[in-house]
Amino acid sequence: MDVKTYCNELADRALAASRKLVTASGMQRNAALANIAKCLLDSTAKIKEANALDLGAGKEAGLSAAMLDRLKLDDAGIAKMANSVTQIAAQTDPVGQIIEGSVRPNGLRLEKVRVPIGVVLIIFESRPNVTCDAAALCIKSGNATILRGGKEAMHSNAAIAQCVRQGMSEAGLASDAVQLVETTDRAAVGELLKLEGKIDLAIPRGGESLIRAVVEQSRIPVIKHYTGNCHVYVHADAAESMALDICVNAKTQRTGVCNACETILIHKDAASRGLVEKICKALAQQKVEIRGDATVCAAHPQAVRAIDSDWGTEYLDLIVAMKVVGSIDEAIDHINQYGSRHTDAIITQSISAADQFVQQVDAANVFVNCSTRFSDGGEYGLGAEIGISTDKLHARGPMGAADLTTYKWVARGNGQVRK
Amino acid sequence: MDVKTYCNELADRALAASRKLVTASGMQRNAALANIAKCLLDSTAKIKEANALDLGAGKEAGLSAAMLDRLKLDDAGIAKMANSVTQIAAQTDPVGQIIEGSVRPNGLRLEKVRVPIGVVLIIFESRPNVTCDAAALCIKSGNATILRGGKEAMHSNAAIAQCVRQGMSEAGLASDAVQLVETTDRAAVGELLKLEGKIDLAIPRGGESLIRAVVEQSRIPVIKHYTGNCHVYVHADAAESMALDICVNAKTQRTGVCNACETILIHKDAASRGLVEKICKALAQQKVEIRGDATVCAAHPQAVRAIDSDWGTEYLDLIVAMKVVGSIDEAIDHINQYGSRHTDAIITQSISAADQFVQQVDAANVFVNCSTRFSDGGEYGLGAEIGISTDKLHARGPMGAADLTTYKWVARGNGQVRK
Repeated sequence: MDVKTYCNELADRALAASRKLVTASGMQRNAALANIAKCLLDSTAKIKEANALDLGAGKEAGLSAAMLDRLKLDDAGIAKMANSVTQIAAQTDPVGQIIEGSVRPNGLRLEKVRVPIGVVLIIFESRPNVTCDAAALCIKSGNATILRGGKEAMHSNAAIAQCVRQGMSEAGLASDAVQLVETTDRAAVGELLKLEGKIDLAIPRGGESLIRAVVEQSRIPVIKHYTGNCHVYVHADAAESMALDICVNAKTQRTGVCNACETILIHKDAASRGLVEKICKALAQQKVEIRGDATVCAAHPQAVRAIDSDWGTEYLDLIVAMKVVGSIDEAIDHINQYGSRHTDAIITQSISAADQFVQQVDAANVFVNCSTRFSDGGEYGLGAEIGISTDKLHARGPMGAADLTTYKWVARGNGQVRK
Repeated sequence: MDVKTYCNELADRALAASRKLVTASGMQRNAALANIAKCLLDSTAKIKEANALDLGAGKEAGLSAAMLDRLKLDDAGIAKMANSVTQIAAQTDPVGQIIEGSVRPNGLRLEKVRVPIGVVLIIFESRPNVTCDAAALCIKSGNATILRGGKEAMHSNAAIAQCVRQGMSEAGLASDAVQLVETTDRAAVGELLKLEGKIDLAIPRGGESLIRAVVEQSRIPVIKHYTGNCHVYVHADAAESMALDICVNAKTQRTGVCNACETILIHKDAASRGLVEKICKALAQQKVEIRGDATVCAAHPQAVRAIDSDWGTEYLDLIVAMKVVGSIDEAIDHINQYGSRHTDAIITQSISAADQFVQQVDAANVFVNCSTRFSDGGEYGLGAEIGISTDKLHARGPMGAADLTTYKWVARGNGQVRK
């Protein structure tokens, strides 16, 4: 079968399954999730066998140690996946929530009701647990999903998807609501992204080049998660200990994540109080390499001079860019120019500085006096997240199950006609 | 200047203006709207002069009478535009609304706050009043806008945009927050749609081919309003008088609009009660041409036989397609197959039939026992609308000023770091 026909048939099955899934109760969707969690645990040996095939092929193909590490599933990893599914089942059901409602002057009862989006295409790279998390969030929110994973994780993804489909069937739900793209033909993604009318939403999860390629090709709406180039701005009046704690935490508590800090901006008056030296010293103790402007390099001779590209780089490593700014306006302009609209924080005691920063920084998450590391579905109380959107349309910031819904306007009357 | 440079500079100015506009209070934005309304009225003569140039050129170019009619602005039309701006000013300010909020266990105060989207590109066809309505809704919601109108309305659009920009300046706001694309070069739209990062949202308003071309080219998120192929389904138990009233109103109250009914589906048991004949007769009295299936044609000999393409056609005229269905499931399947996800209504006395229809019909607006003509921003109490979205992402159905906003997650702490 050619790839175009394959993709069309896959999407037709997903659409048909999604139309059935809107009639499933929350109880049925939760039962499916419970079945999936159990099946994952029961299938631990089988999943590890499949994973071993991927790891073997990966080693042969010369994947890096970091890539192999991401790919690897052990007992603890599989138990964690199952636990995540159980937690998603325990979340509040977003489907059917009434977002707003009113009785119109003519007596029409109008409701804006949350409903599933329909068919969601998720394109992701090597981590096989995404198969499970994404499917579970789509089931919770009543969506059918088409999963396109990386070919390195092919066997692992298939073993996991098998559990997911079995869990759906056992709960009396259409197993075609979760389908894995089984061809490794690269053309499949392009074909799927043309299927406007059958697929309602595409979510690419992976590096920037993957996301750009999806946006370039897609006729389907895409929700994107580009880089996280997050800033901490230390205002003139920032309390010293808070500034030190937050800069160190935002940069070093976990470096490989999108909400880690990549650039620190320091107001010149804070610099005059010696804060540049102190922050540099605290970071250096955590083995952070500092790339600074002239003032920073003068205050901390071990720092290397930053070049322009440093301001736009998401290091995801023990490296930070640092700059002294003349004013809060300069800090905001810098963030709006170089930032990725992900998460930016100010440290200040001033209400007006905090308000200005919150209003003028154009980012999904804008923080006052806390670490950038808090922009996260779990920390926000949203439960598991399908990703962190750096878009402004539909969903912005951490996206939970409710962000995989749309709404319907429902009007109930008793014969109203328009005059 | 080449068109690429022109578009880039236009977008740069819009982005800069949007960053200033986020600091404007609701009072200032409303003052600008009041100035614009006044300026439009004061400039009536000037706008009519500009409009006469467009009408003259249109006649020469051989535009149809309907096109010329859409293009025409008279005293009443200009007063109506001004009045619409005044009404938009009177709406609730969406900017700054707190959508939700909580205090996290670690003491972080978290708020999801409504903020402007940023820069909105609106691409529209001949009606010059769109210049004014779209600009006013964008100003109300704190967005900068780039307006690309049809070249037939070039002079009219320029005269209206002049009032808008003057009204902004007089209120102390950046007039570059509203810019008209002044080149008629068709390449401009393509260039603008590439400016991801400068322009946040594109809204095409016009025929299906315009919208498809925009979707095809755009790297910017697009909110679409495709056709309105709306259905009325008359269930087995529908009350006769209600069925007659709603079918006639939905089809004939205004035919050229997207929420007019285009297909009527009738349950076979309602057909047995003679409802097909009665509905056909009532519609025929309003000069509606009926295109029916075999049963409809048998019951109403003046009806012509429908062909498959009739089920997918938005007539926007005194024509209706009509079919007898064996069950509510068949009606729902028909609507989900041929409909445009705009507005579909059921007429029934049965709670279970109504619930099934509301749950299973995949449309922006799903109605029980009322005319399809009610899917409208004004009827929903949303005020003036920027369009009716047939998309599922971001906004669905009538879109008011609030749908031109996104949100920001704001967290305020007192030194919290992540453990």
